[in-house]
Amino acid sequence: MSVGLSQERLDAKAKVTGRCRFTGDLALPGTRIAKYLHSTIAHGRVVDIDTSEAMSVTGVEAVFTFADIPKIPFATAGHAFNLDPAARDKEDRLLLTDHIRYHGDEIAIVVAVDGLTASKALKKIKVTYEEYPAILNHDQALDEKATELHEGSGNRVGEHNYQCGDVQAAIAEADHSLTGQFQTQMVQHCHMENHIAWAYMDDTDHIVIMSSTQIPHICRRIVSQALDIPMSTIQVIKPAIGGGFGNKQDVVLEPMVAFLTKKLGGVPVMLELTREEGLSSTRIRHPFRVNVDCAVNNDGTLKALAMDVSSNTGGYASHGHSIAKAAGSKVVPLYPNAALSYQAITHYSNLPSAGAMRGYGSPQLVYAVESIMEDAARKLGMDSIDFRMKNVAQTGDTNPLTGKVIESAGIRECLIKGRETFGWDQKKQEHQAFKSGNIRRGLGLACFSYGSGTYPASVEIAGARMILNQDGRVTVQIGATEIGQGSDTVIAQMAAERLGIPVSAIRVVSTQDTDTTPFDPGSFASRQTYIVCQAVAETGDLLRQRILEHASTMLELPAEQLTISKDAVVNGDKTVHLSLNELALDAYYHKTRGQQLTAEVSRKVTTNAYSYGCTLIEVEVDIELCQLSILGIHNIHDSGKIINPDLAAGQVYGGVGMGISGALSEELLADPETGWIYNNNLLDYKIATMMDAPDISCDFVETHEPTAAFGNKSLGEPPLLSVAPAIRNAILDATGVAMNQLPMSPKALFTAFRDAGLLDSVRPQERAHVSH
Amino acid sequence: MSVGLSQERLDAKAKVTGRCRFTGDLALPGTRIAKYLHSTIAHGRVVDIDTSEAMSVTGVEAVFTFADIPKIPFATAGHAFNLDPAARDKEDRLLLTDHIRYHGDEIAIVVAVDGLTASKALKKIKVTYEEYPAILNHDQALDEKATELHEGSGNRVGEHNYQCGDVQAAIAEADHSLTGQFQTQMVQHCHMENHIAWAYMDDTDHIVIMSSTQIPHICRRIVSQALDIPMSTIQVIKPAIGGGFGNKQDVVLEPMVAFLTKKLGGVPVMLELTREEGLSSTRIRHPFRVNVDCAVNNDGTLKALAMDVSSNTGGYASHGHSIAKAAGSKVVPLYPNAALSYQAITHYSNLPSAGAMRGYGSPQLVYAVESIMEDAARKLGMDSIDFRMKNVAQTGDTNPLTGKVIESAGIRECLIKGRETFGWDQKKQEHQAFKSGNIRRGLGLACFSYGSGTYPASVEIAGARMILNQDGRVTVQIGATEIGQGSDTVIAQMAAERLGIPVSAIRVVSTQDTDTTPFDPGSFASRQTYIVCQAVAETGDLLRQRILEHASTMLELPAEQLTISKDAVVNGDKTVHLSLNELALDAYYHKTRGQQLTAEVSRKVTTNAYSYGCTLIEVEVDIELCQLSILGIHNIHDSGKIINPDLAAGQVYGGVGMGISGALSEELLADPETGWIYNNNLLDYKIATMMDAPDISCDFVETHEPTAAFGNKSLGEPPLLSVAPAIRNAILDATGVAMNQLPMSPKALFTAFRDAGLLDSVRPQERAHVSH
Repeated sequence: MSVGLSQERLDAKAKVTGRCRFTGDLALPGTRIAKYLHSTIAHGRVVDIDTSEAMSVTGVEAVFTFADIPKIPFATAGHAFNLDPAARDKEDRLLLTDHIRYHGDEIAIVVAVDGLTASKALKKIKVTYEEYPAILNHDQALDEKATELHEGSGNRVGEHNYQCGDVQAAIAEADHSLTGQFQTQMVQHCHMENHIAWAYMDDTDHIVIMSSTQIPHICRRIVSQALDIPMSTIQVIKPAIGGGFGNKQDVVLEPMVAFLTKKLGGVPVMLELTREEGLSSTRIRHPFRVNVDCAVNNDGTLKALAMDVSSNTGGYASHGHSIAKAAGSKVVPLYPNAALSYQAITHYSNLPSAGAMRGYGSPQLVYAVESIMEDAARKLGMDSIDFRMKNVAQTGDTNPLTGKVIESAGIRECLIKGRETFGWDQKKQEHQAFKSGNIRRGLGLACFSYGSGTYPASVEIAGARMILNQDGRVTVQIGATEIGQGSDTVIAQMAAERLGIPVSAIRVVSTQDTDTTPFDPGSFASRQTYIVCQAVAETGDLLRQRILEHASTMLELPAEQLTISKDAVVNGDKTVHLSLNELALDAYYHKTRGQQLTAEVSRKVTTNAYSYGCTLIEVEVDIELCQLSILGIHNIHDSGKIINPDLAAGQVYGGVGMGISGALSEELLADPETGWIYNNNLLDYKIATMMDAPDISCDFVETHEPTAAFGNKSLGEPPLLSVAPAIRNAILDATGVAMNQLPMSPKALFTAFRDAGLLDSVRPQERAHVSH
Repeated sequence: MSVGLSQERLDAKAKVTGRCRFTGDLALPGTRIAKYLHSTIAHGRVVDIDTSEAMSVTGVEAVFTFADIPKIPFATAGHAFNLDPAARDKEDRLLLTDHIRYHGDEIAIVVAVDGLTASKALKKIKVTYEEYPAILNHDQALDEKATELHEGSGNRVGEHNYQCGDVQAAIAEADHSLTGQFQTQMVQHCHMENHIAWAYMDDTDHIVIMSSTQIPHICRRIVSQALDIPMSTIQVIKPAIGGGFGNKQDVVLEPMVAFLTKKLGGVPVMLELTREEGLSSTRIRHPFRVNVDCAVNNDGTLKALAMDVSSNTGGYASHGHSIAKAAGSKVVPLYPNAALSYQAITHYSNLPSAGAMRGYGSPQLVYAVESIMEDAARKLGMDSIDFRMKNVAQTGDTNPLTGKVIESAGIRECLIKGRETFGWDQKKQEHQAFKSGNIRRGLGLACFSYGSGTYPASVEIAGARMILNQDGRVTVQIGATEIGQGSDTVIAQMAAERLGIPVSAIRVVSTQDTDTTPFDPGSFASRQTYIVCQAVAETGDLLRQRILEHASTMLELPAEQLTISKDAVVNGDKTVHLSLNELALDAYYHKTRGQQLTAEVSRKVTTNAYSYGCTLIEVEVDIELCQLSILGIHNIHDSGKIINPDLAAGQVYGGVGMGISGALSEELLADPETGWIYNNNLLDYKIATMMDAPDISCDFVETHEPTAAFGNKSLGEPPLLSVAPAIRNAILDATGVAMNQLPMSPKALFTAFRDAGLLDSVRPQERAHVSH
């Protein structure tokens, strides 16, 4: 048994000893360094650009501008290709532009023998701009007279809506209806390793790209499209990667490094973004403006939920409207029995491009939905948990959007378990003493549902290949990418489980190489464990069968009487014992029988499964200092069968931490007039550190998802989904103030507390207390 | 149709533009450089070694001696592992030694930040030797009182014999018997790229080795054995390689770089030998001493051939007795109808280690056999071709050694074709005018037979994997290694043939990586085309079938009605047309049907096939100058079906050139007293250059070998096999002098001509002529 045990991460030692090599560590001798020139305005045109002085810097090998690049618009989003042209991503990017769409847009690039020389040359490029007024929000973008960022777009990237049940009628008939508007901010992934890629040519028509990407196979396709070269002449290699969180589910640097090496006769060229470039010129989380209406009856029944989303994608579409669309569909399985409506629009603006980021729109939408749910519970005077228990999904409910039965839904069990282990009712009792004065305490709850992959929006396919080595160990090759989340380890456990051998006898090839790695679109949508398990399980079964067939030949016994146990083939009563090492040596080296025993399976998955969970939180608010302390935060997840409890807990800790940081302090700040980005650095962009992290705890409700090989469902993104609304609801519980805009920073709390009269009310009293 | 056409080499452009990257071009940043300290004596012991001063050189990171290395004797020969312990190679090597067995033996190693520092440190190592008398030849080595180079060996590496028919009786009964002794020299491969390998660890127990090796999978096994670490924790990668000729069919540097990186905490460490080290401290061709007896009847029938070989393997066994054994068996199919006997011994000596080199013992043995054949023809007064025609194999003959029928033997057709195209009879006529005086002309002929792989001596296995890319092109992954011989191109042609697509739609992954590359022992024994074709053909068939099955689903037509033609699936009358690009996109991206289409086959080959051929040569000898000019040299080969005529001709030109150089000028010179190597550099070691090359021509007799997928047989090594004896026989024809020792250098000709009285006879006459 390997599945269900807390196997140590396969890459743990390599990473803590520094032996693990990342993209930059693998650079070839003689690699040239490229650096972008970014625009210093947010909206306008390059009227003139003079690169002559830059070109004359010793060590500069080339300078390219808009004039030099292929005029092939391409989409950067890391989505599986869609056979339906209408479903493809917006092709609105060029390698470089003279039409500036955000502060930091890429207008030129320098290639030099080293980074210092490239930086020096960048400063010598003279640019004359024509500047336009910056378009920053929904109203500005969709104003009829607004300048179009992309010709013919009307600044609209996409829009759609759905309706499940008669929402208007339900609202009209319900005992109560509520409305709210919620606004989320620009946040950025801040993965440890910045974007980096390099490329060279090893033939006159073959380009090798090494990249820190979540999506090597997709990357290959997009480079092919951007440069109009055949896919099979491009090879993308993904070594170890220092985080991505969706920002590397976009093809950011690869087409450019491929272009540069092609232009420079095949020499290796590297692009490595600085943290500053990463913060403003890669991708961010879409700011959402969400209007929500909800209707409830006195008995606590949620009758209707109407969501109206405006998603701001910034200067380029990237994942564009997919984000708002995905968020809209993933919330449905949480309250499948209410009438639901959703309408969403995604618009351009002169802000940094938004793309995929952990949660893919759901954190924004869940923040709005779970806030209004809390408001509804309060309106009814119901306990937050009780209210959710009345409305959340149960196994066997039907997803009204797909018409399919929800095969496993453990959210009620999560709530019951959480109420118990978090001591919800007891805390609630204790908090009665903290509802006035400067120090307040409150409890918050939020729930979520999420998918396990992108089906049916996209094709879901995964591939695995296994090789029995001469020493009896098994090498596993998978297209799915380890990006720090631990997927290699979990896949090794699944393979071991099916083969009947220990995890220590498995080696996972962690590097993906599009030339030879089984096809898989990559790491996103919390799909790895769920989508990949099927291919891994089947490949394991196939290799196991082939091993037993060879054993049958060697032992002259029927294969059905044999099984693999640990490191050997045995029969029922274990009187027969043939080590896998002996068997493998025979298969490889016997002169007439046998062969190298391998197995490969590529499998499409045509199901999806919903994960559920909730965050329970206890906060303390110092009204006067506008300071929030998290006394306890507890996530309970239904991710089906947990393959590796320690890794699962790790995902939760990381996700909750990210959720807290995004809820309380992170915000990329744009000048409301010019669109300039003020804080593209980690001094001024306030990301939580270990010092800011409260104790985080978690628990799991292990339902069995029948569509997955091991009963498992998604867990990568879910942990952060319900954090912000839980905090918002706890602050509301503690203070009566509803924070309907993110981040809920001390500055925002100050404004809100002041507007609510709280500061005036507590200040004299507290002062009096101090003077005692 | 792709097979049979002169497809341009896949790597041609990459190699001529310098884009192809070799082992050294791929070094990681921060790679440390290691350099060996070689012994300055040929036989003895290190009594004392002081590395303290070397260690104190700034930039030196480590110095290791015999004291530091694992005491695990290992075999370096690149043979497939043998399940029979008795058939395995001699395990007589350690990473470093204090027991010196040849001049250049490795006694210490320095690792430094760069090569200059390492070299500087090497000079500071102080070694005190105890020196023993050098043992250099058969008699010295096998003398009862001789010091044993390897304890318990009696200086014997191996011996064996066979007898087919009653040779003694045949000799006794025959009309004539002849005897001869032949001696070959030490020659070296002189591949363009010296030996180079580097290694690093990307985890605490995983070693990655990049190496210029012909045998990555074997290399992995041997490193595992030499360092006693599990095979699957070692990964060997073989990029483009600048030649090997068998010298890289030995595991020369890889165990050491693996040891060094392990000792140094995983940092990358590179070992790159200099040309000087390559010449004396890697491997050489075994010098053979061959005694041959042969018996013929007056009608030209060869009745018996008795061969007695002593093979000198130098200080370490390396491929050891396999060389003499292989040579002895590969000659049998040439004259299968004579009584044949063979006895051979391989002994140690204090000379550089001999290993695999193009021909693997056959060039030495064929030199002896085809010399005595010429002598026999002359004794009978028969034309050389006529004599061979009477005795060489025909299709349907039985190989007396294996008892198996020779399925294809085109040597008679080669002789007939050669006689015609070379104008043998006409030249013979013209030469009557050049049989006296200073300028003589002569014709020479020699034949050979050769195997196509190592079966049944070793397991013969090959693997291939193919992937249909999204653009409709096919990636081919093979375990067989391209080492400059063009095997990737030929494999692409075979794959294209079976798939029904053009070669331009095939990409061969040229880099082998033991983690993911289908298993194949590597490139040696002229096996690639013959052994690999079966796996490639079957994989092509399998992928083709899977493509047609997917087409059948898409088109709703039975797969049997469909076929692949060029870039599309079509039906019989071509009214249906589905491009492979469309098909692939559907297979990859259709949301419910299809999958990544791949195929993989690992196949053991349990046959062998004999190639044949001959060299016809016309020489002119300037007796006084002891100068030989080749007026024409023509090889005719029966290698079965020729997959790529231009590449096949290239193999012949290269092989014949190598044969000429080895016959006439190359010789690694050892001091007959001390065993010191005098000329381990390319100024003093006389390898032929382009300026020395005569016009070489070739022709093919395309028999059909039924055991091969395309009717093909070996061609890698054969072209050089018959060159030296043909030259020897032509000199004999021109001058009456039999050169029974190699090389037939001007110096050797001088001695021979002088001893034969030729110089005395021509000199006065020519002087007189000049004085006219």
